[in-house]
Amino acid sequence: MTIPRFTKKISKIAGSSPGTLVHSGEGDLSAIRISMMNYDAERGVQEHAPASIAAAIELSEFPGSSWIHIEGVHDLDMMEQIGAHFDIHPLTLEDIVSVGQRPKVEDYEHYLYIVLKMLCFEERETLIGSEQLSIIIGPRTLISFQEQKGEIFEPIRERIRKGRGRIRKGGSDYLAYALVDAVVDHYFLILEKIGEKIELLENQLLDHPRPRTLQAIHGMKREMIFLRKQIWPLREVVNQLAKGEADIIQPETRVFLRDVYDHTVHILDTIESFRDILSGMIDLYLSTISNRINEVMKVLTMISTIFIPVTFIAGVYGMNFKYMPELDWKYGYAFVWGLMAGIISLIIIILKKKNWL
Amino acid sequence: MTIPRFTKKISKIAGSSPGTLVHSGEGDLSAIRISMMNYDAERGVQEHAPASIAAAIELSEFPGSSWIHIEGVHDLDMMEQIGAHFDIHPLTLEDIVSVGQRPKVEDYEHYLYIVLKMLCFEERETLIGSEQLSIIIGPRTLISFQEQKGEIFEPIRERIRKGRGRIRKGGSDYLAYALVDAVVDHYFLILEKIGEKIELLENQLLDHPRPRTLQAIHGMKREMIFLRKQIWPLREVVNQLAKGEADIIQPETRVFLRDVYDHTVHILDTIESFRDILSGMIDLYLSTISNRINEVMKVLTMISTIFIPVTFIAGVYGMNFKYMPELDWKYGYAFVWGLMAGIISLIIIILKKKNWL
Amino acid sequence: MTIPRFTKKISKIAGSSPGTLVHSGEGDLSAIRISMMNYDAERGVQEHAPASIAAAIELSEFPGSSWIHIEGVHDLDMMEQIGAHFDIHPLTLEDIVSVGQRPKVEDYEHYLYIVLKMLCFEERETLIGSEQLSIIIGPRTLISFQEQKGEIFEPIRERIRKGRGRIRKGGSDYLAYALVDAVVDHYFLILEKIGEKIELLENQLLDHPRPRTLQAIHGMKREMIFLRKQIWPLREVVNQLAKGEADIIQPETRVFLRDVYDHTVHILDTIESFRDILSGMIDLYLSTISNRINEVMKVLTMISTIFIPVTFIAGVYGMNFKYMPELDWKYGYAFVWGLMAGIISLIIIILKKKNWL
Amino acid sequence: MTIPRFTKKISKIAGSSPGTLVHSGEGDLSAIRISMMNYDAERGVQEHAPASIAAAIELSEFPGSSWIHIEGVHDLDMMEQIGAHFDIHPLTLEDIVSVGQRPKVEDYEHYLYIVLKMLCFEERETLIGSEQLSIIIGPRTLISFQEQKGEIFEPIRERIRKGRGRIRKGGSDYLAYALVDAVVDHYFLILEKIGEKIELLENQLLDHPRPRTLQAIHGMKREMIFLRKQIWPLREVVNQLAKGEADIIQPETRVFLRDVYDHTVHILDTIESFRDILSGMIDLYLSTISNRINEVMKVLTMISTIFIPVTFIAGVYGMNFKYMPELDWKYGYAFVWGLMAGIISLIIIILKKKNWL
Amino acid sequence: MTIPRFTKKISKIAGSSPGTLVHSGEGDLSAIRISMMNYDAERGVQEHAPASIAAAIELSEFPGSSWIHIEGVHDLDMMEQIGAHFDIHPLTLEDIVSVGQRPKVEDYEHYLYIVLKMLCFEERETLIGSEQLSIIIGPRTLISFQEQKGEIFEPIRERIRKGRGRIRKGGSDYLAYALVDAVVDHYFLILEKIGEKIELLENQLLDHPRPRTLQAIHGMKREMIFLRKQIWPLREVVNQLAKGEADIIQPETRVFLRDVYDHTVHILDTIESFRDILSGMIDLYLSTISNRINEVMKVLTMISTIFIPVTFIAGVYGMNFKYMPELDWKYGYAFVWGLMAGIISLIIIILKKKNWL
Repeated sequence: MTIPRFTKKISKIAGSSPGTLVHSGEGDLSAIRISMMNYDAERGVQEHAPASIAAAIELSEFPGSSWIHIEGVHDLDMMEQIGAHFDIHPLTLEDIVSVGQRPKVEDYEHYLYIVLKMLCFEERETLIGSEQLSIIIGPRTLISFQEQKGEIFEPIRERIRKGRGRIRKGGSDYLAYALVDAVVDHYFLILEKIGEKIELLENQLLDHPRPRTLQAIHGMKREMIFLRKQIWPLREVVNQLAKGEADIIQPETRVFLRDVYDHTVHILDTIESFRDILSGMIDLYLSTISNRINEVMKVLTMISTIFIPVTFIAGVYGMNFKYMPELDWKYGYAFVWGLMAGIISLIIIILKKKNWL
Repeated sequence: MTIPRFTKKISKIAGSSPGTLVHSGEGDLSAIRISMMNYDAERGVQEHAPASIAAAIELSEFPGSSWIHIEGVHDLDMMEQIGAHFDIHPLTLEDIVSVGQRPKVEDYEHYLYIVLKMLCFEERETLIGSEQLSIIIGPRTLISFQEQKGEIFEPIRERIRKGRGRIRKGGSDYLAYALVDAVVDHYFLILEKIGEKIELLENQLLDHPRPRTLQAIHGMKREMIFLRKQIWPLREVVNQLAKGEADIIQPETRVFLRDVYDHTVHILDTIESFRDILSGMIDLYLSTISNRINEVMKVLTMISTIFIPVTFIAGVYGMNFKYMPELDWKYGYAFVWGLMAGIISLIIIILKKKNWL
Repeated sequence: MTIPRFTKKISKIAGSSPGTLVHSGEGDLSAIRISMMNYDAERGVQEHAPASIAAAIELSEFPGSSWIHIEGVHDLDMMEQIGAHFDIHPLTLEDIVSVGQRPKVEDYEHYLYIVLKMLCFEERETLIGSEQLSIIIGPRTLISFQEQKGEIFEPIRERIRKGRGRIRKGGSDYLAYALVDAVVDHYFLILEKIGEKIELLENQLLDHPRPRTLQAIHGMKREMIFLRKQIWPLREVVNQLAKGEADIIQPETRVFLRDVYDHTVHILDTIESFRDILSGMIDLYLSTISNRINEVMKVLTMISTIFIPVTFIAGVYGMNFKYMPELDWKYGYAFVWGLMAGIISLIIIILKKKNWL
Repeated sequence: MTIPRFTKKISKIAGSSPGTLVHSGEGDLSAIRISMMNYDAERGVQEHAPASIAAAIELSEFPGSSWIHIEGVHDLDMMEQIGAHFDIHPLTLEDIVSVGQRPKVEDYEHYLYIVLKMLCFEERETLIGSEQLSIIIGPRTLISFQEQKGEIFEPIRERIRKGRGRIRKGGSDYLAYALVDAVVDHYFLILEKIGEKIELLENQLLDHPRPRTLQAIHGMKREMIFLRKQIWPLREVVNQLAKGEADIIQPETRVFLRDVYDHTVHILDTIESFRDILSGMIDLYLSTISNRINEVMKVLTMISTIFIPVTFIAGVYGMNFKYMPELDWKYGYAFVWGLMAGIISLIIIILKKKNWL
Repeated sequence: MTIPRFTKKISKIAGSSPGTLVHSGEGDLSAIRISMMNYDAERGVQEHAPASIAAAIELSEFPGSSWIHIEGVHDLDMMEQIGAHFDIHPLTLEDIVSVGQRPKVEDYEHYLYIVLKMLCFEERETLIGSEQLSIIIGPRTLISFQEQKGEIFEPIRERIRKGRGRIRKGGSDYLAYALVDAVVDHYFLILEKIGEKIELLENQLLDHPRPRTLQAIHGMKREMIFLRKQIWPLREVVNQLAKGEADIIQPETRVFLRDVYDHTVHILDTIESFRDILSGMIDLYLSTISNRINEVMKVLTMISTIFIPVTFIAGVYGMNFKYMPELDWKYGYAFVWGLMAGIISLIIIILKKKNWL
């Protein structure tokens, strides 16, 4: 489950016609939930939960801004209705349902299509999960597609409801900024959790390194590779939006997107820093183990160096030769003890000089 | 067989005239197979299997789009006929037959020449094979040259037959897109297989690392180097096509090529991720082995530390001195056992304190 | 405390409205200190310590240059007053109070907003601390916001008081240069301290490497990663200022900023050099430990190789067989000593040849 | 002899006047050989072997293309004559005789000066040798200077003689292309040989790694560093030629140079791949050695763990205490054997569980 | 003394006014030496050794080119006189006296300011020393400032005296080229010395690696980091000069500067190659040590494996049990020898099969 994430992609049959809709996600396929907000500065806010996409399309005839948020992208009929009504390019529809896209922005003149990755960090397994968020920004209508249910846009809804800030006046491009900003802000939370985990591992490493620690560091490093792969293209996406190449993005919104761009760069810097720190930790682990081997070796060598010679002497006087003059000496036994004590002392002195004791 | 792939190249004699046709592949030299499809939106589809290139050239007088697909590039006469009829530059012909080109696109005004690599993954030997695909895109005619027989374009033929999507209306540039897209999509399948293999290796590494695992990781890393070398230039090729510098590519087709470009970048990202993961695995392996050495060392040291001193004591009382008072003590034997037990206990306590037990 | 620094950021609730002021620092929240200097070439200098921001705003009606320096950014009311009076964009206010910004410069036509990092090096813990400095440069007024109290701008105040150099004539852009220059100059002091620490570690490493040395090197490397992350974006900031894209920066000031730019590049070069040196030190440590293991192993092997064979011989003649002819030889004992001496000599000769002795 | 190659350079006395001709090569200084070909599409080919440069200059008054090839660059008088007659800049003459230049192209309006490296691979010593080739391309005349004798241009001469391809019609710029192409094609041969050597080393590494293998890998890596340093600037040279910034290069020739450019990039890719593979091999070697240490350690530990405890028991019953009840038991001996067998079995079971047996 | 070099910088008090002259070098502060050459193509050469800068300024009223060379930069009065007479910007004066600048070129319209590093290699300590050279190029006058005395410009003086080459005609910009060229040429000498040292180390490494060798390699690597830091910016400096952005540089001089640029790139390439080679050497060292550990381990294991089992057998028959039937056998002793010989043979055969013997 850890590596296949890296290759997740469009599962249309290789060589099949582009624009063929085949859903490639593994999400909860039961029910699709549509939620809708119509609002503008004068008319206030209307919230709807249309039962079908047809109802939503009808409701989107509202003269102000209209935000259709769809949770679940496996209903291909629905996609085709949306495509037909809003004149969406088949490739866009294909990208929405095949949820393994790289973050990107595409400008189809009458609408702007943005793909983002929403991430989550499963702390227990140290695994980063990823979910595709597609945003279609029309002149008045914004449609957002999320793979699974989630609540990270709730604060934005609250802001629309309460009319805080410029969100009600801002149009669909400002709403798009708010969504992108919410996603990027969410990355910081994930980085914070990862940071805590790394600090935990670093402490473990310094206090009591174990093979498990190493495996956890290795796992974290692989997650960083995954994270970088997911977020790296985002930089370019936000940069393109902020540079104002797309007409749909109003000049007033660009200053906010520039802010998001700064955050994106900040996040990528942090990921790079984490990778560097984790690499350093693996080096540290290896050095620590080498150190321990050295310590263990020293003890072994010390014990062996002290006892092997004296054991040899004891062996000599355990021989059964008939004519061994020392055996008959009165103080032979004492002499041997003295000899052995002398040898041991000598060896200990030598070892001390070599700083092994 | 693994390294020479890296240097495979144009085997014309160094210094010989450019445009000299010498075949450099190792493919099945027996028979060349030509298949042909003439189609357009009005006239429908005609399929042919011309016996010779002359017949194919005659058939290509069709007013709509014409796709000549040639499997096998070792017939130099055929190449010269094609060159003469379609006015192909000698360098292009040379590049088609000498199958070690880097992916590239070359614009010769009246035609566009694309070189691609078709890859396959021989799972048992963990080896990536590569085959050259050359595409000549004329205003109405597309000629594709493949080194060996293969079926990856069958879905495209099916689409032409059934008239699905815009392929019949699209002209030769759209057909070229379809071919490139099929090749790139095929890369994803290879990456998926490689991903599975890497996951397998990672599990082996964590459960039961063996020298063989290491060699397999090393082999995979070398394959990644090979893969990157094969695919890296493709990015530039597709980018050039998508940017529309060549007149033969219609503006409508460019949006599809942009999509292929995204996939290419995605593939390169994934290859880089795989390389990083494999590098991490080699580090992990090395650390794991160091760990094991440490474990083994600890056991050895423990056993030695416990038994060497007491063996020495046993040796001492095995000596044959005449005057060894302890030997005559009534409880001498018990005393020695007690002494040895005491020493062993002491050592075990010390080892426990050092966390070695 | 070491890793979370990397993720410190805007702590506004993810998804909340931009421009929401939430303070994210951990500084001394007790009291905010405002100090003020009004000066120009003709009128001389007036220094004030206004009790409230309202008073400061009133004082800033001075016709010459006005520098308001605020220590402490947690008073959100104050920020809103400043925002209202000087027409500061909500995003700027948000960035000032949420003290985890990346260094950047933003041009809002009627003012220029610069974020910098002030660093300090806690030598005992080998930790680099970081503090945010925000500078708003208006046509006549410069407002600087510092998280905590500090004295690094005292020399600048002294220069204004004494009218040394061109500072009194220079306007708010020249003052901004002076502030940035003081911050960058301060980095050199930190680098010098770090350099000394690295040299200390290098000497320790060569003389007497210990696990602690390794941990200290690892710690330093992590600090270098942190430092680089903090300073890297500064290069771009100073470059933008020096290139004169902002109208508020006078052409005469640019030559001074170019000088600061050179220093910034110099600092980044030095950080890179330090990282390379530290990496080299970790490699050196690992090699040194391997060397030691080798030395210890040699001693062990030497002792074992010399004594194990002769101990075996002693063991043989310690056997209690009835019929062991050697035991009854007159010179059996002498013969065995000779044999053992011969074996030991032979082994020593072999070891000498192998360069182990 | 392996490192000094890296620093070989212009050996003019530091600080001396530019344009001072001092020969810096070590080639065969005996005799300089001049060979000459005059040809064009109408007049056919004349071959000469002029005895002196004066004779060659006279012969170059031929109305078609003229190729003067000079083997040996140590005759400074000759260089001055050439300089005077063809109006060659002193710096160019200096670069021709001081044979340690980086590949480069310089456009002096009335001529183009190209420096290339011709390489050879001395397989026995695994050393890459390098020789400088200088080409001066005038409007009608091409002069090539080679350090030593060599036959790699023979096929080009053959093509001129036989009038194959467009070489006779092509002018001096096409001839220059042919020379560059021959040099680059020759690199492929060297890469192939290196590739074979690497494969050999890889097989040795997997089958039977020895210190010698490691040293050979290290040597190959150093050669790759040297090779890269020699070839890297070539890319830029060929790119400049192909882009057609120089007027002397005809537009028709550029398409051929683009082809050479592709080959150059291909070669650099391959060198990078080789470096990566060699780095991987060193890692593999290190891991393999660690593995072996582990294996050896296991055997030692196994033997020690099995025999040390039972040897201790044998030692105990070899003690000479008067009162050792077990010694007098009838089945004492059998009991001890049983005890020892039990201990050995137990240890073996434990070792098997730990997967060491 | 090795690390502080990296942070050497402007020692003006942080925050002090720019243009404050504070000398930061450690050179010989005793005496400043001024030497002067006035020359042009018609009037010939006059050499002076003015006692004071005032005298030098007077002498510089010469109508041709004037070169003032000053050894020692610690006389701040002198600097101020120069600044006043030639209208030098305070920042330039500050940069000249604070000798820790990065190489750079600054164009102040009426003069060009160049900072370079002159290097020397103290072979015994394997340390690269660095000294700052500042050059002010006015339309007629060139002033060069060197920290310490040195003779590397003597050949240039000789060329001016003898009127060799174009130096007398060339003006101050050509003289500046000659100085830069002399400095860069001097780098080659240093690289050659370093190359020799590296080759020496490589031979030591292959023949007889010792911890000292490793430390020397580490030291060389650190010197390479230092060297790169000193020379890297030079590339940009020479490039700017050669591209002719500054008006003071005549078009004829640019072709010579292009040549210097080539040499600079060559030097940087070589430094990179050296770094790569040194890194490879550290890897090689580590592998060699691992190899040796392996060798030592094998010997230990061999000896232990052979003697431990037979020592155990000897121990068994050294036991003092009353009923040990073997002891009474007539050929018991011979049988035991046979048994032990058999065991030793078996073990040797096994070890041979494992390739350990």
